[in-house]
Amino acid sequence: MKRWNGWGDEANKLDLPSTADAFLLAKVGTTTPLVDAQLRDVIKQVPESRLPNHRLINRDPETRIRHARGQSLPDWLAMRSGDFEYFPDGVSFPENNDDLTELLSFCQEQHILVIPYGGGTSVAGHINPFASQQAILTVDMGRMNRLIALDTESQIATFGAGTPGPQVEAQLRAQGYTLGHFPQSFELSTIGGWVVTRSSGQQSLRYGRIEELFAGGEVITPVGHLDIPTFPASAAGPDIKALLMGSEGRIGILSTVKVRVRKLAEQENFYVTFFPSWQQAKEAAKNLVQSDIQLSMLRLSNAIETETQLALAGHEKQIALLEKALALFGTKDGKCMMTFGLTGTKFQCRNALKQLKKITKAHQGLYTGSFMGNKWAEKRFTMPYFREALWQKGYVVDTLETATDWHNVDNLLAKIETNLRTVLAQNSSTDNAIGSPQLHVFTHLSHFYQQGSSIYTTYIFKAGENYEQTLAQWAKLKHSTSEIIVNNQGTISHQHGVGKDHQPYLTTEKGTLTIQAIQSLCDTFDPQQIMNPHCLIASPDASESELEQAQAQVIS
Amino acid sequence: MKRWNGWGDEANKLDLPSTADAFLLAKVGTTTPLVDAQLRDVIKQVPESRLPNHRLINRDPETRIRHARGQSLPDWLAMRSGDFEYFPDGVSFPENNDDLTELLSFCQEQHILVIPYGGGTSVAGHINPFASQQAILTVDMGRMNRLIALDTESQIATFGAGTPGPQVEAQLRAQGYTLGHFPQSFELSTIGGWVVTRSSGQQSLRYGRIEELFAGGEVITPVGHLDIPTFPASAAGPDIKALLMGSEGRIGILSTVKVRVRKLAEQENFYVTFFPSWQQAKEAAKNLVQSDIQLSMLRLSNAIETETQLALAGHEKQIALLEKALALFGTKDGKCMMTFGLTGTKFQCRNALKQLKKITKAHQGLYTGSFMGNKWAEKRFTMPYFREALWQKGYVVDTLETATDWHNVDNLLAKIETNLRTVLAQNSSTDNAIGSPQLHVFTHLSHFYQQGSSIYTTYIFKAGENYEQTLAQWAKLKHSTSEIIVNNQGTISHQHGVGKDHQPYLTTEKGTLTIQAIQSLCDTFDPQQIMNPHCLIASPDASESELEQAQAQVIS
Repeated sequence: MKRWNGWGDEANKLDLPSTADAFLLAKVGTTTPLVDAQLRDVIKQVPESRLPNHRLINRDPETRIRHARGQSLPDWLAMRSGDFEYFPDGVSFPENNDDLTELLSFCQEQHILVIPYGGGTSVAGHINPFASQQAILTVDMGRMNRLIALDTESQIATFGAGTPGPQVEAQLRAQGYTLGHFPQSFELSTIGGWVVTRSSGQQSLRYGRIEELFAGGEVITPVGHLDIPTFPASAAGPDIKALLMGSEGRIGILSTVKVRVRKLAEQENFYVTFFPSWQQAKEAAKNLVQSDIQLSMLRLSNAIETETQLALAGHEKQIALLEKALALFGTKDGKCMMTFGLTGTKFQCRNALKQLKKITKAHQGLYTGSFMGNKWAEKRFTMPYFREALWQKGYVVDTLETATDWHNVDNLLAKIETNLRTVLAQNSSTDNAIGSPQLHVFTHLSHFYQQGSSIYTTYIFKAGENYEQTLAQWAKLKHSTSEIIVNNQGTISHQHGVGKDHQPYLTTEKGTLTIQAIQSLCDTFDPQQIMNPHCLIASPDASESELEQAQAQVIS
Repeated sequence: MKRWNGWGDEANKLDLPSTADAFLLAKVGTTTPLVDAQLRDVIKQVPESRLPNHRLINRDPETRIRHARGQSLPDWLAMRSGDFEYFPDGVSFPENNDDLTELLSFCQEQHILVIPYGGGTSVAGHINPFASQQAILTVDMGRMNRLIALDTESQIATFGAGTPGPQVEAQLRAQGYTLGHFPQSFELSTIGGWVVTRSSGQQSLRYGRIEELFAGGEVITPVGHLDIPTFPASAAGPDIKALLMGSEGRIGILSTVKVRVRKLAEQENFYVTFFPSWQQAKEAAKNLVQSDIQLSMLRLSNAIETETQLALAGHEKQIALLEKALALFGTKDGKCMMTFGLTGTKFQCRNALKQLKKITKAHQGLYTGSFMGNKWAEKRFTMPYFREALWQKGYVVDTLETATDWHNVDNLLAKIETNLRTVLAQNSSTDNAIGSPQLHVFTHLSHFYQQGSSIYTTYIFKAGENYEQTLAQWAKLKHSTSEIIVNNQGTISHQHGVGKDHQPYLTTEKGTLTIQAIQSLCDTFDPQQIMNPHCLIASPDASESELEQAQAQVIS
């Protein structure tokens, strides 16, 4: 069964290796886990639904709890504390376009607000209900989860928008095809969610971001049915696909998704190369991606992430041996790990590896083969379970991500890491409620472009004395770093979308005129403004977001 | 000096080889050239300007003539006949953003309509003035034509939007870089025009369409300055770049363009392979593009285009020898020519060629080396001069283009060619004014995607008895084929944009809701609707387009 207050299936558990305890103690300090709330107690808190009876609406309290939060850190703290604050008034599970059309008509007539829901994996507050005079209906797309058609000649697959990652791949693989979209959230997130939040998968170097994969589909909007035809390319005016991608439910509910798929590749392997320093590693990565080497995946961990990954991997003896061997070649402290994937025909993979070795060698890279890379690939979707394991020991983990042009990668990366390490300690004399805990901060680049790279930073800190303090600490970290990102040529999100948590920073990034243009689009499709309010752009009657509330608490 | 009534520089002339005459006679029949108007006579027809005096506005008649038409066939007929119908009331040549801001303010105050003008190469009526109570100002971007900055680390170049193709490449090449965007109109078209019409270059397989190359820039809109930041990728909501691309001047004037450039490649060559039949050639091309072979360019001519190209190439003896050699290997009548380019390191080019040969051989392709391919590359921007040479002999040439998914390529291609060959003969008893001339129709695919392909059809027919008849014939061909395209899963344009000529078909392609969304965008940026009226979407006070007028003439 899916966890009601965390990630994934209850049966799946990730145990931290013994090496992890000592490492975390040294880096973050001792801590006491906070106490989890019980589901039965939360059920008692769920208020009566404000929704009328409807054949398509479920008002059961547990169902409403299970659709009240995503996977952001505030969501996590709300679920663990049981302090959910808001619940949807009901959940619907439409099975087809007719159900969706009926629901949206009903919601317009009754002035009900609508939150579209895919896998519930948002880390930016996309699917959270909020303070509202109007009733809120969450529309769970989970029953529209099938491969509807596969055109093998044009390599276009048609899916119900609620199809989660594993079912997308299983249904395609049965016919010899793959979509190749593997975000970290793959286990739960859905193909429709990927489209409307502009998701990116780990193998985007080969398969492209969802922007490249999304070919067309159907959207049920409050003003009617939007059918987006598939063309290989078109110069016929602005591309409506690019408006839908990133619209985050504001213009309607995506019901059918047509995507560009490929035949399963002849061969796929992942490999690891170590570099003596960050500068050498980064230059090598930039050089690789600017030289058209056919890689399917590339990830570059900075020195602290490399150290952390090796410490948390277990296999103490093997790691010690590896480090000894690396040291012989001059790659010691400060070393950086590059993981890369090759996918294609055997001929293509062999040639790409040749070119890669030549370039990485010129930057003192030490190639270690496919053992560690393939291990990484095996375990790559288990990472979200890591948060659960850390939580049990009293540690809190969150991530921040952006993308920027190459000339700015080092600058922005340093500013983000430095801020996370220091901001909680600033003004600590007047800010005793927060204190200044030790933060363990590390970063990787995981999506590479000729123009620049994503920056993905993880931070681990110990839970505060209580939930409120922990949330206040997070809010200060999140807010101050988000400001740094948008004021330093970074995008507020490379792969997680805007939701409610990033909305306050979007005007700085895009400018007032662009925000007005997005607003006019939303108004066209949703004149009553019932679709996913407060996400992406501010709604006229916007109450304070959770982040703003928490931020206010920090300041007060 | 630039031709006032045709393509390119007056000094450049393309002579048809002697083989061409006999070929055209056989395929299209005898004809008499129509008489060209003289510039001095047209100057006398230019009415007084309705524009007030302004330091940035030129009201000279010849300048207004030279900005009154693009390069569509009706434009061509208007320029050759001297029957321009409409002229801009003046032309401005802004030198910077301040000039543009001043101009747009002035135009808003004075209710002046604005037509942005790049290279004047539109083949869809983008830059043509029209019947209007309001004065019309054409804004020629030709003085904003410099490389402003080059970030070699992020590979981003910043250009004035009016920079034409040759100057884009020359300024980049001086520093070892290339944009790699080579549309047929390269000699005259501008980087800003490429962006706002969603242009595609001949080497898009390597460099991408302008959609992939455009990274950001500045737009001067009637309501203010829109600054689009560069990010390698972003999930922060809908992408404003995708709204600007294809906006065709409706939301403002693009003034600065930031594009993704690359280092000049180590090696580049073009090659030719012949296939015994269209089906074998098309399957080979689809297979190549779906197999991730690193080609920079691919073009596949159908049998009639292959025959035509060989006949018009001159070099009679060499071609006869080639055909003899091909026949020995079983490739005779019905043969199809594939031209392809390889660009990259020597290693990459060698490996791509190996893979290509393997795949094309499996489809009975006969590889002939780089001689013909490199000849094609040398001459590739001279093709527009071909129209001038044909015109002098009394022949009219035009093209139609679309794109569709692979499963539909053969179907749509056949429908387009059949319609062009037969539609003028239909109802000829009641339609004597038109008659039923012989059309020579041929097609190539020139932009390939894993999902499908562009379809580019050329048709040659003899000029009518007069200009009116010739225009009426064109209108019938254009209208009926455009209907076929949008009703058969084709886009109304793969690479030329919408303009005024394709606007009537856009709602069929995109649907009413999408058109409303585009309208709401235009209204946001241009509340007075002064920007490029009648392009892209219908304007409220739309007079009949030239196409509709000509069409009406056909029917009456």
